[in-house]
Amino acid sequence: MTLSRPSPQAPHALRDAFRTVRSASRELAAPLSPEDQCIQSMPDASPTKWHLAHTTWFFETVLLQPHADGYRAFDPRFQYLFNSYYEALGPRHPRPQRGLLTRPSIDEVHAYRAHVEAGVERLLDTVDDAAWATVEPILTLGLHHEQQHQELLLTDILHAFSCNPLLPAYRPAAAPALRLATVPPAMQWRAQPGGHVEVGHGGAGFAFDNETPRHRALLRPYAIADRLVSCGDYAQFIADGGYQRPELWLSDGWAAVQSQGWRAPAYWLAPDDPRLAFQGGGATGWQVFGLHGVRPMAPEAPVSQLSFYEAAAYAEWAGARLPTEFEWEAACADDGMTEMTGHVWQWTRSSYDPYPGFRPLPGVAAEYNGKFMVGQLVLRGGSVATPAGHTRPSYRNFFPPAARWQFSGLRLAKDL
Amino acid sequence: MTLSRPSPQAPHALRDAFRTVRSASRELAAPLSPEDQCIQSMPDASPTKWHLAHTTWFFETVLLQPHADGYRAFDPRFQYLFNSYYEALGPRHPRPQRGLLTRPSIDEVHAYRAHVEAGVERLLDTVDDAAWATVEPILTLGLHHEQQHQELLLTDILHAFSCNPLLPAYRPAAAPALRLATVPPAMQWRAQPGGHVEVGHGGAGFAFDNETPRHRALLRPYAIADRLVSCGDYAQFIADGGYQRPELWLSDGWAAVQSQGWRAPAYWLAPDDPRLAFQGGGATGWQVFGLHGVRPMAPEAPVSQLSFYEAAAYAEWAGARLPTEFEWEAACADDGMTEMTGHVWQWTRSSYDPYPGFRPLPGVAAEYNGKFMVGQLVLRGGSVATPAGHTRPSYRNFFPPAARWQFSGLRLAKDL
Amino acid sequence: MTLSRPSPQAPHALRDAFRTVRSASRELAAPLSPEDQCIQSMPDASPTKWHLAHTTWFFETVLLQPHADGYRAFDPRFQYLFNSYYEALGPRHPRPQRGLLTRPSIDEVHAYRAHVEAGVERLLDTVDDAAWATVEPILTLGLHHEQQHQELLLTDILHAFSCNPLLPAYRPAAAPALRLATVPPAMQWRAQPGGHVEVGHGGAGFAFDNETPRHRALLRPYAIADRLVSCGDYAQFIADGGYQRPELWLSDGWAAVQSQGWRAPAYWLAPDDPRLAFQGGGATGWQVFGLHGVRPMAPEAPVSQLSFYEAAAYAEWAGARLPTEFEWEAACADDGMTEMTGHVWQWTRSSYDPYPGFRPLPGVAAEYNGKFMVGQLVLRGGSVATPAGHTRPSYRNFFPPAARWQFSGLRLAKDL
Amino acid sequence: MTLSRPSPQAPHALRDAFRTVRSASRELAAPLSPEDQCIQSMPDASPTKWHLAHTTWFFETVLLQPHADGYRAFDPRFQYLFNSYYEALGPRHPRPQRGLLTRPSIDEVHAYRAHVEAGVERLLDTVDDAAWATVEPILTLGLHHEQQHQELLLTDILHAFSCNPLLPAYRPAAAPALRLATVPPAMQWRAQPGGHVEVGHGGAGFAFDNETPRHRALLRPYAIADRLVSCGDYAQFIADGGYQRPELWLSDGWAAVQSQGWRAPAYWLAPDDPRLAFQGGGATGWQVFGLHGVRPMAPEAPVSQLSFYEAAAYAEWAGARLPTEFEWEAACADDGMTEMTGHVWQWTRSSYDPYPGFRPLPGVAAEYNGKFMVGQLVLRGGSVATPAGHTRPSYRNFFPPAARWQFSGLRLAKDL
Repeated sequence: MTLSRPSPQAPHALRDAFRTVRSASRELAAPLSPEDQCIQSMPDASPTKWHLAHTTWFFETVLLQPHADGYRAFDPRFQYLFNSYYEALGPRHPRPQRGLLTRPSIDEVHAYRAHVEAGVERLLDTVDDAAWATVEPILTLGLHHEQQHQELLLTDILHAFSCNPLLPAYRPAAAPALRLATVPPAMQWRAQPGGHVEVGHGGAGFAFDNETPRHRALLRPYAIADRLVSCGDYAQFIADGGYQRPELWLSDGWAAVQSQGWRAPAYWLAPDDPRLAFQGGGATGWQVFGLHGVRPMAPEAPVSQLSFYEAAAYAEWAGARLPTEFEWEAACADDGMTEMTGHVWQWTRSSYDPYPGFRPLPGVAAEYNGKFMVGQLVLRGGSVATPAGHTRPSYRNFFPPAARWQFSGLRLAKDL
Repeated sequence: MTLSRPSPQAPHALRDAFRTVRSASRELAAPLSPEDQCIQSMPDASPTKWHLAHTTWFFETVLLQPHADGYRAFDPRFQYLFNSYYEALGPRHPRPQRGLLTRPSIDEVHAYRAHVEAGVERLLDTVDDAAWATVEPILTLGLHHEQQHQELLLTDILHAFSCNPLLPAYRPAAAPALRLATVPPAMQWRAQPGGHVEVGHGGAGFAFDNETPRHRALLRPYAIADRLVSCGDYAQFIADGGYQRPELWLSDGWAAVQSQGWRAPAYWLAPDDPRLAFQGGGATGWQVFGLHGVRPMAPEAPVSQLSFYEAAAYAEWAGARLPTEFEWEAACADDGMTEMTGHVWQWTRSSYDPYPGFRPLPGVAAEYNGKFMVGQLVLRGGSVATPAGHTRPSYRNFFPPAARWQFSGLRLAKDL
Repeated sequence: MTLSRPSPQAPHALRDAFRTVRSASRELAAPLSPEDQCIQSMPDASPTKWHLAHTTWFFETVLLQPHADGYRAFDPRFQYLFNSYYEALGPRHPRPQRGLLTRPSIDEVHAYRAHVEAGVERLLDTVDDAAWATVEPILTLGLHHEQQHQELLLTDILHAFSCNPLLPAYRPAAAPALRLATVPPAMQWRAQPGGHVEVGHGGAGFAFDNETPRHRALLRPYAIADRLVSCGDYAQFIADGGYQRPELWLSDGWAAVQSQGWRAPAYWLAPDDPRLAFQGGGATGWQVFGLHGVRPMAPEAPVSQLSFYEAAAYAEWAGARLPTEFEWEAACADDGMTEMTGHVWQWTRSSYDPYPGFRPLPGVAAEYNGKFMVGQLVLRGGSVATPAGHTRPSYRNFFPPAARWQFSGLRLAKDL
Repeated sequence: MTLSRPSPQAPHALRDAFRTVRSASRELAAPLSPEDQCIQSMPDASPTKWHLAHTTWFFETVLLQPHADGYRAFDPRFQYLFNSYYEALGPRHPRPQRGLLTRPSIDEVHAYRAHVEAGVERLLDTVDDAAWATVEPILTLGLHHEQQHQELLLTDILHAFSCNPLLPAYRPAAAPALRLATVPPAMQWRAQPGGHVEVGHGGAGFAFDNETPRHRALLRPYAIADRLVSCGDYAQFIADGGYQRPELWLSDGWAAVQSQGWRAPAYWLAPDDPRLAFQGGGATGWQVFGLHGVRPMAPEAPVSQLSFYEAAAYAEWAGARLPTEFEWEAACADDGMTEMTGHVWQWTRSSYDPYPGFRPLPGVAAEYNGKFMVGQLVLRGGSVATPAGHTRPSYRNFFPPAARWQFSGLRLAKDL
């Protein structure tokens, strides 16, 4: 497998990155008990322990076994247990049953991590220049892969906790946040000229195959909001009957509203929610469940845990629309934009289709992105749960339109 | 409701079109018994009787009731029974239960049709020029709407018959077809320059809102097959293990293959299919069920009743890909292309997204197209079941990727 | 196959019975259009046409093919289409898809009936005494079998009509019924001594295998209501919150109430039911849908279309219980009992278990009753839809506890 | 709440029993990790931690809160979390989501247990004679309740482990079992006279309400097998095509065989089962998963993990039948019977109906048994997982006919 990119990093630089990324996964799991790390609250989510093991399996299977002489697998059964979806690598444990794997224990998974980490370090010690050209892109891919799972680890445990009527906090807030503003600044429209723009990844540095090839796209003039839609904005949509007005919704979205009983973002609790009795009571407005537990809805915070359907309905209600992924990407060049990353992933009005001339990675990694290019929508940006430095303007995240357990919100756009 | 188009047709021209279209629906239903016309074989399909009534309801509700003075509804209950999905027009009979409407009888539905047709004729007799500007686009839309249902009437009854182990013929073939060729001509790649192309509907004549606005798109150089993929081609894919090789499939497609047990196009019967015992037996190769009943697979005929997943897997197997909808549309200008319409709808590698600047029709017709723009794929061309003259190069048909009951096939493309 | 019974009837007597029963089926279907006769509104129900064909298939398959020399099957494909559940007779059309059989047409099914009837008449003309001993019990079984399907034909078409928002009447009432009483007579408890009672079928005349062998059972003293629970009685249960009080319900029953949203018997319409708008409106109390269409609830009429769960909850609410099947059977000897048959089937507190010493019929008919003896409850009596003369005190009808589309009600009992 | 029984035990005797039973639950959980104790592998099973908490909740809610002055609840939220199905005690956590309760942790549950145990001890220290008459039957019920959950704890964790492809052992066998016999002794029929027998609980000592009232039943002469059906016996049924022969099965059972793909008892592994690769491989015959992990099928051991459907089909194949629950109970008086308890629960041919004159317990405990009396079958005996001394000849266990995760097998009977 070769990932062609202009300037490979030196082994010592990647060794540091490797240690940093691997350590970050351990730290994310640290606040969780063995029980917390084992469960799976829905088929789309995975247990913490599984994330810790699967990211390790990726290094073992794609890097060490083909490229590290003398490497011995930690446990051959893990090949079956921790394969996610790679058909080329044989049968695997059914996704909806990942939460039933009480064995191996979390301690065994940490031993597995240590074993594979030692293997990678040894490879870094011994690799020669010729081999490095092959090894480096795989190792780099493995790091970005693990960072993706770090975000999923958080979104998945948050979903699991949301199913517990006690609504436990992943990491209690140290102190009541000092909130300087309780309303967001007024939203400003930023006019963009459109025309020919270059999109996709083309420069140095890592990118996933789905961001390539870089190519020209043709845009009409448009305007895009300088900030995200906030919780306060979204509360007005709810108060205005947003969830009761079919004319605002895509057909599938309206069907979801009715069949799933949606009335607010996934983790919002109305004041009469019975679970609030377990939180001490006394709530008077919307409460929002998050990594810090249940807290009063903060009007200035970006709205999160929205499906694409809700994002699109909000935009319709606001007399606007969602930006396309290329409009979003082109607006990155505008210094007046805020909240482009680090808050929530932003649903775009672009289906997750292949770019012109797209070719999947060779070898096993061919299954990484391409085979999911149907039935999903592109999100751009990055969230509070995304590891720092993981994303870039050309980064394409993707989820099905009904997904609501991600840190996903929106930004408005309109034609000019 | 106003549909802005450059040159409205005169009342007398539309009267002819109205009679022709209405009569065509009756003729399509003629070979069917009252029982045939009543049943619904799956939630996505509708009974013949329902199609006959719903197209009539459209004229009654959108044209006559708001615009024909003195018009009296045939039966106010039909407002509820024959609304398809228009939220703005109130509650409606649940889609999956359309087959339970043994009453009104088919005779009552024909009386309903006659009543509404008389109303339309009266409106055409009496409309003045001022009103005509409003009425003409609605009437035109109603005709195109009815033509769409004419195709669905055929695909839906064919699906219903496919669920009957006797596999009855909708219209038995008059005589064994004289088949001059039993292999298709060799496929030729037609090179296309790409660059800036104008796509979408812009000229005179009717088009649906989803084809607008006309706009420029930017294409890379590409090649596109001069003919459709044939049954003979597809049989090679099957024989080469196409349905057993996950690497050829999109992830959702492979899941469908396994959960649905797909082994061939929807209406192909393997020689050991037990239903062939009811057809006289003696089959030695693939048989294909169609409007003329069960007949031996014709290698030269375009393959049909394919899902998008199967079309994409075939293209992968063939070392090619599906064209995008704009590549397909641009290729219409190439005189060397064949089978562009009249055989099967052709899956493209384009999700059904709104065009830049898209605005739905005003009023009730806003729900016609726009609210379905998520989770579906665009098909281009037109099929044997499409009424003559109904389509054009800019026409966008759309279905979910797993849909297999349409006359849907594919044409290959590749990068240059 | 031999059904041992003391006194076989003579061929001429059975010929009359055969003609009468066969003619009754035709008459029951007469008010129905071909569309009405084709549809299947749920997997548990069957189309009218299927009932007409299946009862014919039974005579063809079990009587004529093995026992009538020279008989030629009407259409060998019907063996597959109209087998209900006889595993010994090979594969069959899936039960939930019976409503998709628009072909054969209803005319073909009537031709099938005529063909088989001619075959039976010919057999009756030619059978000798030796053969008659074999033929007679099968023919008799076929007649009782057809009578069972006559009742199902009515319950099933009524269910189908109940799914049509127009709520059509199977047979409109000739004139408003003259109702002498609008309240039932006060219910009286009839004390029964219990002790040893003989139950099951033991005398001359036909009975199904599940009624045998006749045997002694031991009962405690008990009291049983002299009449059925009426609609007026049941309305008090509803008004007293019967459907909101879990303590009245069996656990599975309460789960059904909640998951199915039960609020009244299956075919009762509350005054705010939107379907009443299609009935002319103006309703002020409970309305009940039945074979004569929608009519005001008649307090004196026996309540019907109840599940076992509802019957048991009503009895609990009334401070009583359901009788066991043997208590019911023993009470038949009490002349003070009324409404024992001809109104509704009466749920008992007896699971449908085999009698001590039960042996299924030999041959194909072994599958008639025995294989269903688990998970169902016994009903006794007979309903307005049961053909006259079809039942007897030992007759055991049976349905799963959630079944609500039968003419099923209850009578109270209590310990003494 | 009063449970009338002849001879209440003294407080000191119950204190010993209480300590013994509570300690036994802790010991059963001891081999399990916190992860093992948290998960729920299907809606019908519960996590170990939940069993530990729910049995504690029962003492807290039914005994301490109403009857122990000054008792303070450990955590009021547990009232919601650990209620199983008592409608009278308010809303509760949904059964299928018990496995999502990673919080409270297992340590907190043990603290809960200690808190409630201290409360019970204090009550025993202080209760006076008048109160004791009320308290004693509740405490006794709580102990039997906890013993029932001890068995479920084992069956449920075994099911959870059966879903892990590693098939971990709950408690590895100390050493290869010394097997003196590898075939069971020949089965002997024990003739029983039948006639009037007394059944149900009537003497001193505890019994559940569903075993009462004691009453006379009338039995025909019958024979019953002196031992259980063994694995070797059952393997012959499989080898003889038992799972492919519909004539052996009840209708619902055959449907389950086909829809669930049953081919052997729930925990049997065929030699080609891929999971055996994780066990070291080399298997040549049936392997059976159990509390000691995967071991070769022992022909002399009673067959276990059977549904009622399989038990009934086996009996049919063997030319016999299942005993009724009263036949089983009457045979307890025959000293020649073996394996009546301590091996597997034995499916009977008796539906779980109320006894004549049955009245549920008063108060909250009314929901203990009575509301489940429909749709289930009675099992008699007791299994390897049943706490010693927990059962008696009149004990009625019950499960739905498709349940396969219990230690459930069968014994044959026949008519004489």
